[in-house]
Amino acid sequence: MESARFKKEKIVLDTSIFVNPEVRVDFGKTPTEAIEGFVDLAVRIPHLEFYMPPSIFKELFNFVDEKKISGDLLAVLRQKPPKKHELHCPAFLLYELIEDVRERINKGLRIAEKAVRNINKGDEKEIIQNLRRNYREALRDGIIDSKEDVDLILLAKELDALLVTIDHGIIKWAEKLGIRWLLPNKFKDYLLSYLKRDKSQFSKARTPS
Amino acid sequence: MESARFKKEKIVLDTSIFVNPEVRVDFGKTPTEAIEGFVDLAVRIPHLEFYMPPSIFKELFNFVDEKKISGDLLAVLRQKPPKKHELHCPAFLLYELIEDVRERINKGLRIAEKAVRNINKGDEKEIIQNLRRNYREALRDGIIDSKEDVDLILLAKELDALLVTIDHGIIKWAEKLGIRWLLPNKFKDYLLSYLKRDKSQFSKARTPS
Repeated sequence: MESARFKKEKIVLDTSIFVNPEVRVDFGKTPTEAIEGFVDLAVRIPHLEFYMPPSIFKELFNFVDEKKISGDLLAVLRQKPPKKHELHCPAFLLYELIEDVRERINKGLRIAEKAVRNINKGDEKEIIQNLRRNYREALRDGIIDSKEDVDLILLAKELDALLVTIDHGIIKWAEKLGIRWLLPNKFKDYLLSYLKRDKSQFSKARTPS
Repeated sequence: MESARFKKEKIVLDTSIFVNPEVRVDFGKTPTEAIEGFVDLAVRIPHLEFYMPPSIFKELFNFVDEKKISGDLLAVLRQKPPKKHELHCPAFLLYELIEDVRERINKGLRIAEKAVRNINKGDEKEIIQNLRRNYREALRDGIIDSKEDVDLILLAKELDALLVTIDHGIIKWAEKLGIRWLLPNKFKDYLLSYLKRDKSQFSKARTPS
């Protein structure tokens, strides 16, 4: 029983807890500080294991100065790609994905047609900017649209991990595949709860019986 | 040994052999005649089993008068949906599909922007027609883009069948999934080869030993 209680919980992170300004405040003011804040907390919780796909890790370094990151991050946040040639996904998800893409493609065409028809009603530059925004919103929001997204989902599936992400498209797939997920704004509280529990277990273990 | 030789070969058909004008000539002048031509041949080849997903069968009836189709078609061409909640697809295909869609979505936006910029160089109606054609070509050609496409691929996978199709997007997926495929313009020759073999086996069986 005791060993079951101490089974390590696995957590897969995307970049949002370090990069998204609304989210990272829990850990630090800048992405670099948020990483330090996370590492400080994470090293004190031995019952949690943290993972990030290398593709996401690479994205993270677009936001932070690699030289300022301590080796602790590499030790605490394991970089692991999913076993993409061993994992499978249920075929019915293919239907959902393809129908979703199909509807979005049709929507994209309607947005493009509207932009062409509106050209005499405004400035070309502005119309193109609106076209880009509306098109991207219609074709990308709420859908998994990159191999980085697939990496996150498959890694969480493979490890039976908790996936911490703010991306709606990824959450939608987590729901389809039975993957546990948590919004990043609850993540610090989640960690603190483990920290508290670990401390109390540690002090119990030291109490002479 | 003998029973192995007589194992039935399964074949999954899409609508092209009946509907595509360049292909159906092998079986008949009109879609209805092509169906009759196929049925006449198919009933004489007991070693082949023919399948079509119901979704594709429904598409077929957009091209033929249901009343003119004999019950023989229903008997010869089995309507079977794939077991979409039991089948799985390798996860690495998700990456390929999503990257492919992503590139096409970007291409679609570039096509839309070009149409907006060209508006003063031509007639609006013509520009919209070109936009539609170019957009559809970029976003749909060579990709599986409907649940009917997925039905065909999964049914062929489930039955370990030969998939007869002219659709490049479907063929690309058949290649990824190890599904045998045949272009419809070779299909009549394929059937005639079986017919010849079946006949010679039948006459051998009747020859007194």
